[in-house]
Amino acid sequence: MTDIDVSSSSPTERLHALGLELPAVRESTKYENHRTLDSSVYVAGQLPYSDGRLLGKGVLGRNVGLETGRGLARHAALNALAVAADAVGGLDRVRIVQMLVFVASTPEFGDQSKVADAASALLVDLLGENGRHARTAIGVSSLPLNSPVEIQMVCTSRTEA
Amino acid sequence: MTDIDVSSSSPTERLHALGLELPAVRESTKYENHRTLDSSVYVAGQLPYSDGRLLGKGVLGRNVGLETGRGLARHAALNALAVAADAVGGLDRVRIVQMLVFVASTPEFGDQSKVADAASALLVDLLGENGRHARTAIGVSSLPLNSPVEIQMVCTSRTEA
Amino acid sequence: MTDIDVSSSSPTERLHALGLELPAVRESTKYENHRTLDSSVYVAGQLPYSDGRLLGKGVLGRNVGLETGRGLARHAALNALAVAADAVGGLDRVRIVQMLVFVASTPEFGDQSKVADAASALLVDLLGENGRHARTAIGVSSLPLNSPVEIQMVCTSRTEA
Repeated sequence: MTDIDVSSSSPTERLHALGLELPAVRESTKYENHRTLDSSVYVAGQLPYSDGRLLGKGVLGRNVGLETGRGLARHAALNALAVAADAVGGLDRVRIVQMLVFVASTPEFGDQSKVADAASALLVDLLGENGRHARTAIGVSSLPLNSPVEIQMVCTSRTEA
Repeated sequence: MTDIDVSSSSPTERLHALGLELPAVRESTKYENHRTLDSSVYVAGQLPYSDGRLLGKGVLGRNVGLETGRGLARHAALNALAVAADAVGGLDRVRIVQMLVFVASTPEFGDQSKVADAASALLVDLLGENGRHARTAIGVSSLPLNSPVEIQMVCTSRTEA
Repeated sequence: MTDIDVSSSSPTERLHALGLELPAVRESTKYENHRTLDSSVYVAGQLPYSDGRLLGKGVLGRNVGLETGRGLARHAALNALAVAADAVGGLDRVRIVQMLVFVASTPEFGDQSKVADAASALLVDLLGENGRHARTAIGVSSLPLNSPVEIQMVCTSRTEA
């Protein structure tokens, strides 16, 4: 959580106040970044890329620390937000419904929720009530390109002002 | 499956006949237990908590046996049902659509379906036709707080009497 | 990708041109293969069965090679398509929205996307634009019956001709 006034600023203004920008969306030739059905926008699993570079590799509990994992979760969430913004016509129109957070983990690691909390906090900091989501965090053996974190979302276009 | 007559009793009556009660819903400050979009209620991943205590820790195939895992899956499903009941206005109005069952597993463990079957049976025992769901069971390296089982659902409010 | 003309043939014709047939759907007594809510058809997790036999066992990065994994992903996707076709009244009416690809993986394995690409390509080869989907690929410790791959989908009934 931050000191930013959620009630009187827009998500885009809060993004900039945090010193962040929506990253460019990475396109795949094999699948779509998002598909819409009824009001649901399904956002494909996003990795912590930044400027075309995967920001980390490895497994929590082995060679990736908790704070590093939390930072990577924020980056993956930011990429998912960029896709969502693309899908619904801008960040200010995004409402998050559900988030699935996959954390590459050793069998002994049990802090997946703390990793996911960093992504959840970013969504709420930026989107306020529209960022509040149902969430599931799990530990997996490994992820594409040995990314420590991957995030999938279901979102929608907000209807209120 | 049980001897309870699914046709002539309500889900709440069947719950009590099984000697069960809907547990209190645990709230998180970081995310919501459920979010609704169109007719879909997304229930956040639920662990086998009971009275504020996680009922088990560990990994199937290593230090958690199959029957223990099945009991934990029932408890996690019961917690998910409690959230669903909260969301739609009571257990008697819940219809389950999809269930995702995550089982902390060694690489050699292959009985995730048997663990998930215990959760599926509970849903059908309680809700009858409204408990019948599409399901996916997978084995993961670890789960939050080293829980052996986590369950996520999509449900809806039943429309028929 | 193949040489088949996606624009002038039906999905069923392209299936046969690839030498494939929709497999028989395996029924479970514990859960449903699909459930529908609003326009969404939730397809239960499908394993690479063929003629009642699981086509492989093991873990990518240990005892299952990449090409074997890709073949198994195609089979699992074909089974998911068979369920989807059942649900919406035939393969020619299926539109895929989202696909979740679970790959049993060692902690070091990072080619889950390449495994999933084989399933994605099959969907697009068969269904064209209606096969384009949002996708998430993850590596898990193990899967039911020690299957190397499991695939879950959300699909819908296509509305255009």
